[in-house]
Amino acid sequence: MSSTAGQVIRCRAAVAWEAGKPLVIEEVEVAPPQTKEVRLKILFTSLCHTDVYFWEAKGQTPVFPRIFGHEAGGIVESVGEGVTDLKPGDHVLPVFTGECKECRHCQSEESNMCDLLRINTDRGVMLNDGKSRFSINGKPIFHFVGTSTFSEYTVVHVGCLAKINPAAPLDKVCILSCGISTGLGATLNVAKPKKGSTVAIFGLGAVGLAAAEGARMAGASRIIGVDLNSKRFNEAKKFGVTEFVNPKDHDKPVQEVIAEMTGGGVDRSVECTGSINAMISAFECVHDGWGVAVLVGVPNKDDAFKTHPMNLLNERTLKGTFFGNYKPRSDLPSVVEKYMNKELELEKFITHEVPFSEINKAFDYMLQGDSLRCIIRMDC
Amino acid sequence: MSSTAGQVIRCRAAVAWEAGKPLVIEEVEVAPPQTKEVRLKILFTSLCHTDVYFWEAKGQTPVFPRIFGHEAGGIVESVGEGVTDLKPGDHVLPVFTGECKECRHCQSEESNMCDLLRINTDRGVMLNDGKSRFSINGKPIFHFVGTSTFSEYTVVHVGCLAKINPAAPLDKVCILSCGISTGLGATLNVAKPKKGSTVAIFGLGAVGLAAAEGARMAGASRIIGVDLNSKRFNEAKKFGVTEFVNPKDHDKPVQEVIAEMTGGGVDRSVECTGSINAMISAFECVHDGWGVAVLVGVPNKDDAFKTHPMNLLNERTLKGTFFGNYKPRSDLPSVVEKYMNKELELEKFITHEVPFSEINKAFDYMLQGDSLRCIIRMDC
Repeated sequence: MSSTAGQVIRCRAAVAWEAGKPLVIEEVEVAPPQTKEVRLKILFTSLCHTDVYFWEAKGQTPVFPRIFGHEAGGIVESVGEGVTDLKPGDHVLPVFTGECKECRHCQSEESNMCDLLRINTDRGVMLNDGKSRFSINGKPIFHFVGTSTFSEYTVVHVGCLAKINPAAPLDKVCILSCGISTGLGATLNVAKPKKGSTVAIFGLGAVGLAAAEGARMAGASRIIGVDLNSKRFNEAKKFGVTEFVNPKDHDKPVQEVIAEMTGGGVDRSVECTGSINAMISAFECVHDGWGVAVLVGVPNKDDAFKTHPMNLLNERTLKGTFFGNYKPRSDLPSVVEKYMNKELELEKFITHEVPFSEINKAFDYMLQGDSLRCIIRMDC
Repeated sequence: MSSTAGQVIRCRAAVAWEAGKPLVIEEVEVAPPQTKEVRLKILFTSLCHTDVYFWEAKGQTPVFPRIFGHEAGGIVESVGEGVTDLKPGDHVLPVFTGECKECRHCQSEESNMCDLLRINTDRGVMLNDGKSRFSINGKPIFHFVGTSTFSEYTVVHVGCLAKINPAAPLDKVCILSCGISTGLGATLNVAKPKKGSTVAIFGLGAVGLAAAEGARMAGASRIIGVDLNSKRFNEAKKFGVTEFVNPKDHDKPVQEVIAEMTGGGVDRSVECTGSINAMISAFECVHDGWGVAVLVGVPNKDDAFKTHPMNLLNERTLKGTFFGNYKPRSDLPSVVEKYMNKELELEKFITHEVPFSEINKAFDYMLQGDSLRCIIRMDC
């Protein structure tokens, strides 16, 4: 038992007081974990577009003041009642969505969309009592997607924590909490390309490059990257991308360009932009008879996916995925092992590193579009 | 070697001289099979909507005079050059689409959409020489989808013939040539419901009932039939349908009705009407996390399938199928075996029987909507 167990911990956290305004490092109070909750010390966290999207709060109900952050690696400090499979000292990855292991989704082999702990971006409190564990002078500071990792200590539901190999370097595997696993799983778990197949990846940001990394690991013979920014191709080669198509360079729809390059279409495609036109292209560029298109990117709420039904009847498959179909607790430990045995390369995703005190720089790098992942070190 | 091998055979055929006009039984000349072709004696044939659709010729280029028919059972009379896997006396089912065993589709485990022999409804001639094997006084009569089974003898490409167990009764298994296999395979090969799962079937015609039969065989616990004609429910019970929904009886979309009946949606759905609205409902009525919707019905050419992409991102799968994903030569023999070992029931699909001389009655039964399958006996 740590000496802090059962006590309020005072520590540093980066608080977003208002939408779009720089985070402020504050001293916060972190309450002890309640039933089914775990308090952990965050060692490394990284920044994902989803943090930025909800920090900008342009499209949703704003929930402020709030502590963002959902990609991280940490160590269990103490556990609440009813927590049996984690103990102080365990190394964990917090995840923005959970696995209660009891609902229909958790009991289905096919789903990872837990009824109890599925992502909820509007909720700023813990499930157990509907309150926040963070406060400053008694005033609550809200949680974000149940993780709030931009804090030296945070409280997370046990169902949102993956216990991982303690030998795994947390400053690398912390990026498996969200975006990288999402792209990787979209390819490995959902598109499932066979060795030697052709794969198109739409969008060469971090998620798309992780999808490409999955295609590389699966032994794809050709990985065609599609992006409106041609500068991304050079970087993408590191992730196995063999060819590049910029839709702006062509007079015809990109699905036709890809069909011509591949004798009728690719075997698999993975859409990682969220643009509705890219989704339609990603579907229509797969080969009839066996092509599978996987949608990852999150669309605008008024978008409509539209295609001629003959494109389906010609034996194409269209699927969507959430968090790469990984069940957080059951599956993430094995993704960490793929890194440990050098099957999966993570270093190439990490383009920047900043101390916690300079966390706003990580936002700048992302907004400028020149980072894949920026690691934020909590110890400085 | 039969005594007729290499000779022109004179026999009876039902000729469609004009769109929509009753067929006329004529004496036709059937030329010997050429390279990779087989001439067969048809013993039983049945009528499918596709025959009626192209006979009415309302939506396509008319090809007349023509011999329709594509669901049948027959016996090989003689074979052309290069035919090694069939010999006179073999029992076969002709199929409207083929399997060359050499193209990318045939070599893919996932596809049955053979590049060489894929269905072609506009072509009225044989591939080998671009000519018809049927004639009356030297004037060619055109083929239909490579089968033209409304004739006592017909010539078919070897790639469009499934060699089956000679003990199988051809007056029953002939209906496996098209519609019944299409529905059955849509469920068994594509939707793949697990034992105990819930399945919705849209459209309770012969194809939809075959899809229901597949769900029954797979051990589905609930099979929900959806049709605009409530009279069909009673018949559908024989095929395992346990519940019935008529969209006309509800104020809300049928996908919402089904979601309420099933706690969020069915595990699998199969769409067998071709109506674009039914396709959208069939997709949106499957459960998030694991639901799979399979489209079978052929849409109008201007239809657009439209849905919100979040329906996909919530881990639903949308697939289409062609001929139930069965490869005609490789897979149909095993479907016949399912009938032989009483796993699959065919008798209940056969509602009528007529002699060949009264073939127009089969058209009447279908147009009146009161038949599932009408067997046409060629020997009378």
